[in-house]
Amino acid sequence: MPPGPLSSTAAAGPCARVTAAYRRIAEVDRPEIWITLRPEAEVGAEAAGLERRLAAGEFLPLAGLLVAVKDNIDVAGLPTTAACPEYAYRPEVTAAAVARLIAAGALVLGKTNLDQFATGLVGTRSPYGAVRNAFDPRLISGGSSSGSAVAVALGIADLGIGTDTAGSGRVPAALHGIVGIKATLGIIPAHATVPACADYDAVTVFADDLAPAVTAAAVMAGPEPRDPRSRTWPADIRLAAPLIPSIAVPRAADLTALSAPYRDAFTRTVGEMAERGGKIEEIDISVLLDAALLLYDGAIVAERFAAVGAFLDTAPAGADPTVTAIINAARERTAPAFAADLDAIARAGAAATELLHGFDALLLPTTTEHPSIAEVLADPIGINRRMGTYTNFCNLLDMAAVAIPGAPTADGAPFGVMLVTPAFCDQIAIDLAARLLGIEHPPLLVDRGVDLAVFGAHLRGQPLHRQLEQLGARFLDEIRTTDAYRLVALNTTPPKPGLVRHGNGEGAPIAGELFRVSEAGLGRFLADLPAPMALTSVELDDGRSVIGFTCTNEAARTATDITHYASWLGYLRRDR
Amino acid sequence: MPPGPLSSTAAAGPCARVTAAYRRIAEVDRPEIWITLRPEAEVGAEAAGLERRLAAGEFLPLAGLLVAVKDNIDVAGLPTTAACPEYAYRPEVTAAAVARLIAAGALVLGKTNLDQFATGLVGTRSPYGAVRNAFDPRLISGGSSSGSAVAVALGIADLGIGTDTAGSGRVPAALHGIVGIKATLGIIPAHATVPACADYDAVTVFADDLAPAVTAAAVMAGPEPRDPRSRTWPADIRLAAPLIPSIAVPRAADLTALSAPYRDAFTRTVGEMAERGGKIEEIDISVLLDAALLLYDGAIVAERFAAVGAFLDTAPAGADPTVTAIINAARERTAPAFAADLDAIARAGAAATELLHGFDALLLPTTTEHPSIAEVLADPIGINRRMGTYTNFCNLLDMAAVAIPGAPTADGAPFGVMLVTPAFCDQIAIDLAARLLGIEHPPLLVDRGVDLAVFGAHLRGQPLHRQLEQLGARFLDEIRTTDAYRLVALNTTPPKPGLVRHGNGEGAPIAGELFRVSEAGLGRFLADLPAPMALTSVELDDGRSVIGFTCTNEAARTATDITHYASWLGYLRRDR
Repeated sequence: MPPGPLSSTAAAGPCARVTAAYRRIAEVDRPEIWITLRPEAEVGAEAAGLERRLAAGEFLPLAGLLVAVKDNIDVAGLPTTAACPEYAYRPEVTAAAVARLIAAGALVLGKTNLDQFATGLVGTRSPYGAVRNAFDPRLISGGSSSGSAVAVALGIADLGIGTDTAGSGRVPAALHGIVGIKATLGIIPAHATVPACADYDAVTVFADDLAPAVTAAAVMAGPEPRDPRSRTWPADIRLAAPLIPSIAVPRAADLTALSAPYRDAFTRTVGEMAERGGKIEEIDISVLLDAALLLYDGAIVAERFAAVGAFLDTAPAGADPTVTAIINAARERTAPAFAADLDAIARAGAAATELLHGFDALLLPTTTEHPSIAEVLADPIGINRRMGTYTNFCNLLDMAAVAIPGAPTADGAPFGVMLVTPAFCDQIAIDLAARLLGIEHPPLLVDRGVDLAVFGAHLRGQPLHRQLEQLGARFLDEIRTTDAYRLVALNTTPPKPGLVRHGNGEGAPIAGELFRVSEAGLGRFLADLPAPMALTSVELDDGRSVIGFTCTNEAARTATDITHYASWLGYLRRDR
Repeated sequence: MPPGPLSSTAAAGPCARVTAAYRRIAEVDRPEIWITLRPEAEVGAEAAGLERRLAAGEFLPLAGLLVAVKDNIDVAGLPTTAACPEYAYRPEVTAAAVARLIAAGALVLGKTNLDQFATGLVGTRSPYGAVRNAFDPRLISGGSSSGSAVAVALGIADLGIGTDTAGSGRVPAALHGIVGIKATLGIIPAHATVPACADYDAVTVFADDLAPAVTAAAVMAGPEPRDPRSRTWPADIRLAAPLIPSIAVPRAADLTALSAPYRDAFTRTVGEMAERGGKIEEIDISVLLDAALLLYDGAIVAERFAAVGAFLDTAPAGADPTVTAIINAARERTAPAFAADLDAIARAGAAATELLHGFDALLLPTTTEHPSIAEVLADPIGINRRMGTYTNFCNLLDMAAVAIPGAPTADGAPFGVMLVTPAFCDQIAIDLAARLLGIEHPPLLVDRGVDLAVFGAHLRGQPLHRQLEQLGARFLDEIRTTDAYRLVALNTTPPKPGLVRHGNGEGAPIAGELFRVSEAGLGRFLADLPAPMALTSVELDDGRSVIGFTCTNEAARTATDITHYASWLGYLRRDR
C-alpha cells in the first residue's frame, strides 16, 4: 500500500490532518472517488472548532478522524445522489450512524461514489465514473462502496462508511487489503440511507486496520428509534472467542469459483489460522452458496424495485443501464414467488444454523478474483455475480462478517478473507479476525455485560477457567483488591481460595483478574456456583467496586489463611 | 355452556374418559366437527395402554386428556385434508406439537373441520359443512379452527389444537366462552402443518379454562429443528406480571367496529380489569388496525398462494369458492408490492413497540360480533373481514395473545377479550388473563429461569421487592432453610437481615420466599447488589439447594443475632 501522508501525521491535531488530507486528495488525482467533496475551508473550520473543544478538555474518542461517506447515506446539507444525478435530494437530517461519528469528533470530508443504488460489487456502475483501484488504476475498486474504500486505501480518509447488502462493505476491502466490518443487521442503524433491499441492508465501515474499524463500528452501533429494523444485543451475548476456536472452512468443491491465485492465497490463509491456534474443519457450504443466489436470481430483488423502481420509470439520463436492467427485471416478479423465496431463506437460515453449530466462525474468501475495469465492462453481470459467491448469503441468512486481509497472492496482490458468524456473534468474528492478524487485544464492539472479578480456580490457565470461556466471558485486566481482604485456602475439589472481607487495613491487596460477561452469563455462572462459593461486591485498589468471589463464613472459619502470598497463583507456586 | 359428561368424569381414568367422549359425540350429533374421527376401539386401546403405564408408576402430565386436532396439522396415519378432500395426503410423521402432547399422555380423538386452508374466521368455509356454534346452531362457530373449538365447548375434547394466522385460534374461543392461547410465533413449532402464511402461522390450543390451556401450550412449546422458524425464549425473559399492571385499552374511536352488545361487554370487562388492580389507560391503536389490513388487502396474502396456489390451479371440486377467490387474487400481486408491504409491516412493528412501551399488555375485544351462519353466507367477505379487526395485526407485528372470556353480553352470550403483548411476553399475557379471570396461580408457559431464595428486604411487601418485580421475577413458594443457618440483623439502609451458614444443627430453619427469575435478570440483580450482601448456594429443608442470599463475614460479625425469630418478618413484628 502506498504510504499516505496521514501515516506521518497520525498524532497531529484535527487541523493538520485536514490539511494533509486535502493535499493527498490533490496528489492522488482520483476525482471519481467523490460525488461531493466538501470545501477544505469548511472542514478546516470544523477542525478548528474541534481543537478548541479538545483544548477545553472535552473527550472526543474519534477526535479529528476523517470520514468518507458513501453517497447513499444522508449527511445534512450535502446532496444524496445514490450515484444517480437525477435522484439527488438534499437531506435535512444526517443518518444516525454518521451523526454518532460526528458527535464523537470525526470530520466528514464528503460523499463518495458507488455502484448506483448500491447495486453491484464492482465499482464501475456509476455515471460519476468507474472507481479505479487504489494500487492499479486498470483494476476495479470493488463495490458498491467503491469511493469510501479507495479513500481509505489511498490514505485520504481514516474511516470509509459504506453499506452492504450483497457484500458491498466487504468486497472493496478485499481488493485493497483493508478491513471492512459488516455487523449483524440492525446493530448499526440504517436510518436515513437509500435502501437497496431494505430488509437486508447494513451500514459498514472500512479502515486500514481492525482496531479503528471496530472502534468506529462501536460508535455507530446502538438502538435507533428512527430505524424500524434497529436491534439490540441479546442478554446472553458472547463477548470473546475461546482460546482454541473451532473454525469451519469450505471444502475444496466449494472453492472452485476462486481464481487460481486466490485459491492458493486462501489455502495459505487457512494455514495461518491453524498456526495461530484455530482448530480447522472443512464443511460443505453448498446450502450457503445456494442461498446466495436468492439475492438477485429470485424475487427478493423486488426490494430494490420497491425502493427506486418508480424513480427509474422516469427514465433518468444518469441511470446506469446494468443497474436499471437488474432492478427493472424485478417488476415482473410475482408476490407468490417472493413469498416462496422468503420460505427458502427461512429454510436456508435454519440449515445454516445447524451447519455452523459447534463452530465459532466460518472462514471464507471474500471474493473470487480481481478483474480489470475493461473485463467488467465487457461482462458486467457475469463477473459481478461470481464475485458475490461468498458474500451474497450473509445478510439474507442474518449473519455477521468481518473482512480482513488474508495472505497476499504469490505476486503480492491483496487477497481478502471473512470471519463469518451467526447474528450477534460479531465480537467472536472480530476476535478471530484479530487472531489471524496477530492483534492481541481488539476493542469491544459490544457494549453489554457485567464485570466479574475472579481470584482462584477461574483465573486464566486454572482448572475452572473454561466455565468462563463457555459463557463467552472476556478477559479485561489484571486487578488487585484493597487491603481489606484476606485470602484463605478452602478444602474444595478442585482447590479454591476464599476471598474474605475484613476491615480496611486488616488484610492485603489480593491479585485477581477482571472479566466481562453477559448478564445472562453471570446469572448462569451464579446458578451453577457450588457451595461454599459466593458472589458479592468487591472493592479494588483503583476505587472500583465490582462483582467478585467470596465464600461462606463457615467455610472461611476452618480454612488456612494464605493472605501473605497475595494471590492464589503465588500460593500455588509456594513449593516450587 | 351445557355441561359435558366429562365434567363428571374429570377424575376418571383414560378408558372411562374415552367412553364418555364417544358417548358425548353421539349425543351432540354434530358430525361437521370431524373430518376424521378415529374409531372408539382404537382410541380405547391407547387409553388402556396409558392405564398400564400409569399403573406402572409412569408420570404422564397430560394422562388421558382428549385432544381434537385441526385438520391442517399432521397426525401420522390419519389423512390431512386442510378441509379440501382433493388436497388430502396421509402423513407418516406427526406434527411436533401434537407428538409432544401424545408423549405427555394425551389421546387424539380425530381431525377437525376448519375454514379451508385456514383461510377464514367464520367456520363456514368448508365442503365438510359449516360448523355450527356449540350453544346455538344457527350461529357460526368462528374459525378457522372451528371444529377444535366446538369439540372443546361441547365437552368432547379437553384440548382443541388449532392454528392462528389472522385470529383462527382466538375468534372461535371468543364465540364459545373458552380459552385460546396463541403464543409468540416460533415458540410452539409449526412443523408438519399446512401453511396458511408460513411466516405468520402459529399452532394454538383451546381449553375450557386457562390452566389446562397453558399446561398444554407448555408441553407443545420448545425448540424444534424441523421447524425453520422455531425460536427460543430470550435470556432476559420476564416471568411474571407486576402487582399493579399497566393495561392499555383502545380509545372509543377504535371500538366502532364492535356490535352494540359487545361494546357494552367490553366496557364492563375493562371495568373488571380495573377492579382487579389493573391501571387502565386508553391509547390510539390505529397503527395496529391499519397494519391488520396488510394481511389480506395487501400482497402478503401471496404467502397463501405460495402454499396452495398450484393445487388450486387444478380446480378441485371441493375447493371453497370464497377461499379460492381470496387465494387466487394473490396471483396478481407483484413482488415489489410484497416488498413494500414487508416494509410497512416493519414500520408498523416499530410503531407498535413504541406505542406499547411502558404497558404490560393491551386488552382488546377478540372479535366484533356473533353473526348467524345465514348472515355469513350472504356476506362471506365483509363480515369475516370485520371480525378480524382486532386479531389480524397480531402475528404480522410479532405479538403474543391470550383469548379468554370477558364479561358476557347483557343477554348472557359469550364475549371474548385478548391480553396482547409484544413477542416473548406470553407469560405476562397469561398472568393478566388469570388476573381478569380471578385465577391465583396460573401455570408457567416459560421453562427458562433460575430459582432465587430471598429472606429479607426482597420478600413480597418489603421495600426492595420491586427490584425483583422489575426483573420479572415470579413468586414460586414459601420456603425454609435447613437448621444450619443463623439470621442476623445488619446495619443497612433499608434494614436487611444476613443469612449466615454455620454447621448443621448450629442454626435454625429460616423462612423465606423462592422466586424464579431469568438468567439475565439474576445477573442484573447480582450486578446491582450492594455490599455487604452476597449470593450463594443455600440448602432448603426439602433437600433442594438454590441460589440465595448471604452476607459478607465482616458484616455478620458486627450484627445482632435474630435467629430465634425464625424469619425476617418475625423479627420485624417483634415489637407489635
